[in-house]
Amino acid sequence: MVAALVFDVFGTVVDWRGSLIRELKNFVPDPAAFADRWRGEYKPSMDRVRSGALPWTNLDGLHRESLDRLLGNTQRDEATRDHIVRAWHRLSPWPDSVAGLTRLKKRYIIATLSNGNVALLVNMAKNAGLPWDTIFSAELFRHYKPDPEVYRGAVALLGVPADQVMMVAAHNSDLVAAQREGLRAAFVARPTEHGPGQKTDLRAEHAFDYAVTSMEGLAEKLGC
Amino acid sequence: MVAALVFDVFGTVVDWRGSLIRELKNFVPDPAAFADRWRGEYKPSMDRVRSGALPWTNLDGLHRESLDRLLGNTQRDEATRDHIVRAWHRLSPWPDSVAGLTRLKKRYIIATLSNGNVALLVNMAKNAGLPWDTIFSAELFRHYKPDPEVYRGAVALLGVPADQVMMVAAHNSDLVAAQREGLRAAFVARPTEHGPGQKTDLRAEHAFDYAVTSMEGLAEKLGC
Repeated sequence: MVAALVFDVFGTVVDWRGSLIRELKNFVPDPAAFADRWRGEYKPSMDRVRSGALPWTNLDGLHRESLDRLLGNTQRDEATRDHIVRAWHRLSPWPDSVAGLTRLKKRYIIATLSNGNVALLVNMAKNAGLPWDTIFSAELFRHYKPDPEVYRGAVALLGVPADQVMMVAAHNSDLVAAQREGLRAAFVARPTEHGPGQKTDLRAEHAFDYAVTSMEGLAEKLGC
Repeated sequence: MVAALVFDVFGTVVDWRGSLIRELKNFVPDPAAFADRWRGEYKPSMDRVRSGALPWTNLDGLHRESLDRLLGNTQRDEATRDHIVRAWHRLSPWPDSVAGLTRLKKRYIIATLSNGNVALLVNMAKNAGLPWDTIFSAELFRHYKPDPEVYRGAVALLGVPADQVMMVAAHNSDLVAAQREGLRAAFVARPTEHGPGQKTDLRAEHAFDYAVTSMEGLAEKLGC
């Protein structure tokens, strides 16, 4: 029996790369390359928090820090840099996300479980029409996925046993970390998250409860 | 400019007393008196957490502890006691709440800011159709209102200046505490929250930004 579904967001629910490329067009000469380099800073920046090299910093803060590094001293003012950082608040959903989540919400609690900060996820939901019941974020636990504190924290707030919570993600590593904490797991393939040449996470590489190719496919499997 | 509205829930959005009386009918001889005695334990139990006499305990935990005290050793089994505690997850909204919140949500971020725990508030929202963008709870901050940490915590997660956040409540003390942290304040009169003989919180007793008699009235004032 599953009571709640918790969702990875970047890549799983929204197309961060396509959205950033559109947003960056007016600001940098090669927006696809810039989007990939910016996203390339994501894991290293969270690792600096994880290791203690950086004090707790939310994802808006990490995005701003890495954007400043990538832009260097090009003449971009504060307001423009803020606008670009907030492109992450305006990411567009994959075409099946809103319809699938709307179906799933009728029967299950649906919540984010994302490394994005709360404001980013709330603004994104309002902008994109994502019908979350609530927002769970790394920011609430001051740990980034895949630290176990994030999965444990969400389960504790939901007030149900871990095996009544299902993690939904397009990333094998996120699901493996969730399973290690006793959650169920559903893989949603997003084979163009990283663009046309994607090599990783093309399919479920472990024994997950479900492996589907869209949120509507997940709703189907879960009887919604 | 207001970006987000955060709402007290018990009494402001839902009719806890009327709902509890209906739920308690099958279990105790005088459900109105029992509801009032149970609610009477609410502030003392949070004070025990505040003083450190009790370690952090969420509201489901405090409700269970006070229910056990009130029931004493009457023959109520675990499952029945759990069912009664979860009556707080099933409270009904005031007649204007869903319509008013739905209007307000079109223009503002709307979130709870309640002493209820996250699971209680999520379950209540699904049961009653309350369209929150997200759930903020004392449980996230491990402090109960009116401790300043709760208001500050919500503002920090929203990522906007405090004066862009408006607290909405039927209780003067909650709004005064919010104003002290720089939030705006809207009073919604709920003159029968405590039953027909209510003596307190019949009207706004301080200079708040708005004083209305329903959520629809608030939507009207805020141009929704």
